[in-house]
Amino acid sequence: MAVYTEVDDEALFAFVSDYDIGNVVSCKGIAEGRENSNYLLHTEQGPFILTLYEKRVNPSDLPFFLGLMQHLAETGVKCPVPVVARDGVALRTLAGRPAAIITFLQGVWPRRTSSLHCAGVGRAMADMHDASKTYAGKRANTLSINDWRPLYDSVSDHADDVTAGLSIEIEAELAHLEATWPKGLPTGVIHADLFPDNIFFLADKISGIIDFYFACTDYLAYDIAVCLNAWCFEPDAAMNVTKTQHLLAGYEDVRPLTHQEKTALPILARGAALRFLLTRLYDWINTREDALVQPKNPAEYLHKLRFHQGVKDIGAYGLS
Amino acid sequence: MAVYTEVDDEALFAFVSDYDIGNVVSCKGIAEGRENSNYLLHTEQGPFILTLYEKRVNPSDLPFFLGLMQHLAETGVKCPVPVVARDGVALRTLAGRPAAIITFLQGVWPRRTSSLHCAGVGRAMADMHDASKTYAGKRANTLSINDWRPLYDSVSDHADDVTAGLSIEIEAELAHLEATWPKGLPTGVIHADLFPDNIFFLADKISGIIDFYFACTDYLAYDIAVCLNAWCFEPDAAMNVTKTQHLLAGYEDVRPLTHQEKTALPILARGAALRFLLTRLYDWINTREDALVQPKNPAEYLHKLRFHQGVKDIGAYGLS
Repeated sequence: MAVYTEVDDEALFAFVSDYDIGNVVSCKGIAEGRENSNYLLHTEQGPFILTLYEKRVNPSDLPFFLGLMQHLAETGVKCPVPVVARDGVALRTLAGRPAAIITFLQGVWPRRTSSLHCAGVGRAMADMHDASKTYAGKRANTLSINDWRPLYDSVSDHADDVTAGLSIEIEAELAHLEATWPKGLPTGVIHADLFPDNIFFLADKISGIIDFYFACTDYLAYDIAVCLNAWCFEPDAAMNVTKTQHLLAGYEDVRPLTHQEKTALPILARGAALRFLLTRLYDWINTREDALVQPKNPAEYLHKLRFHQGVKDIGAYGLS
Repeated sequence: MAVYTEVDDEALFAFVSDYDIGNVVSCKGIAEGRENSNYLLHTEQGPFILTLYEKRVNPSDLPFFLGLMQHLAETGVKCPVPVVARDGVALRTLAGRPAAIITFLQGVWPRRTSSLHCAGVGRAMADMHDASKTYAGKRANTLSINDWRPLYDSVSDHADDVTAGLSIEIEAELAHLEATWPKGLPTGVIHADLFPDNIFFLADKISGIIDFYFACTDYLAYDIAVCLNAWCFEPDAAMNVTKTQHLLAGYEDVRPLTHQEKTALPILARGAALRFLLTRLYDWINTREDALVQPKNPAEYLHKLRFHQGVKDIGAYGLS
C-alpha cells in the first residue's frame, strides 16, 4: 500500500481541466498497489483512477501498457481503459511524474480464492491471450529467465540471512531452469502478474482485470504458471488440485493447450515461483526500512518452488 | 497513510448486507488517516466511507464521536454522518474491530493553505462551536494540559536524540504552561484536530469537516489555537499574519471572542504547539520502524512553539 507522490490540489484541478470529465469533487490516495501511486478520483461524471507512474515503471513502456488496455477493451476483455484528454492524449504529466486517468472498474478482488474463482480466471486469461493476438505492441519480459541470475546476483550476499541454505537452493534451481527452460512455445502478450488483487469480481463473476504494468511478450503458458502459484495454493502452502483443475479447465474451454505447453507446465511453474521468490527477496533485502510498503515474505514462494520441484508431469495439477 | 485492518470480501458483503444501501460494487483502502483504517466503499447507491476503529481509539468514546457528527449535521454543519443499518444501529463490528459506514463528503483538502481558506476555516469552526452547544455528549480531552507531562515522561529519555537540548526546552515549557494555563474560559465541544486534511473544499468553499475522533470538551479558544498552528505557518516556519487575521476575523464573524479568550490566545497557542510536539515526538520515537505510517517530524512544532513563546499579546496574530 503506497502513495509515493503527493498531488497538490491546485495541480490536480489544472490537470483534470484538460479532460472533458467535469470538475473534481474528490481525490483520495488508494492504499493498494506497490509500483505506482493510485488515486480514486471523483469528478462530476463519477469515479476514475488517477495513476502516477513511479520509478519502477519505465516511461518508454507506458504507451505499450496503455495501448494494450485500450486494445483489450475494444476486443471485449473487461478492463479499465485510459481516458484521453481534449487533445486526444492519454499519457500526461502530473507532479513531475508520467500520469494517466483510467476508467473505474467495479468489483472487489477475492481475499480468499475459490475453485469457482479459478475457473473464471482461467477463462478470462485465455480470452485475454486470444484478444492480445491482434495487438501490434511488443515488449520483452524484463523479469524472464535471462534476468533471474543477474537479479539473484544483486542480492545473493544476503540470501542466507533470510533463510539458511537459501543461496544453495536458488543457485541449483537457476542452473536447472537455465538447462531445461522450454523453447518455442506459443508466444503472445501476457499479463505476467495475474494475482488475486488484479482480478475483480462481482457476485462471483469476473468484472475485470487491472494493472497491466508487467504485461509483456512471452510464452502464453507462463501466464498460466504465474496463476497456478498465485491462485491455487492454500495459506498452509499446500497446492489445491481442485483449484488447479478448475483453472486449467477454464483456460482450455477457450484455448486448448498444446502438448508442448502441457509438458512444459511444471518447469514454467518452477520458473514463475523462482521469479517471485527473487523479486520478493530483492524487496525484502532492499526495502526493509521503507516506511511505505511492507515487503512480502519471500518464504511463501520458496515453498511453492519446492512443491513444483517434486512435480513429475501435469497430472500433479489434475490434468491428464 | 495506513490501512491497519484488511477486510475480507466475504465479511464485507455480509457487513454491508445489514444496511439498506445496495450491494457492494467496490471497496478500496484509502491512504489517508493515521488513527483508523478507512475504505472508500462504493455500493449501488454511490460512495461511502467505511471506517474500522483501531487501537488508538477508545471504543467507549465512539458513541460520543458518532453522535456528535449526527448532531452537527442535523444542526446544519457540513460533515459526514454515520449510516444506520436496518436495525437502527450505526456502530457495528467488522474484522474484529468496531466499524461504521459514514456518508461520503465531496471535496479536496488544501495542500497549500491560503488566507481565503483560513477565513472559511474560522467561520466553519465557530459555526461548529455554536452547533455543538446543544449536543448533550461530553468527553474529557485526553490530550490536554494535565496529560502532557505524563506523555512527555514516557519519551523524555529519547528527546535529546531527536534534537539536542529538546528536553530542557520541553521541561521549561511544561512548567510555564502548568503555572499560567488559563482558567474558566468558555467551554464546549471542540474538534481538537482541525488540520488542513480534515477540512474539504470545493471551488474555494468549505464542503465539510471530517474526522471527529479527537473531539472533546475543552476551551473553545483552544480549537482556534490548534488551527493557528495548523493553517497559518508557512513551510519555512514563519507565521503568516494575514492568515491568522483572516482565521480570527472569520471566527469572530460568527462568535466574537471574549476579552479573556483574546488574552489567553498566545498561551493556548503555546499549549497547542506543545501538544502536537509531544505526540509527534512520541510517534517519532515509538514508530520509527513502523512500515505503515511515516511519523511526522516533531521539529515543525518546536519551531511553532518557539514563535508563540515570543508573542506578547494577540496583536502578534493581527487582532487588536
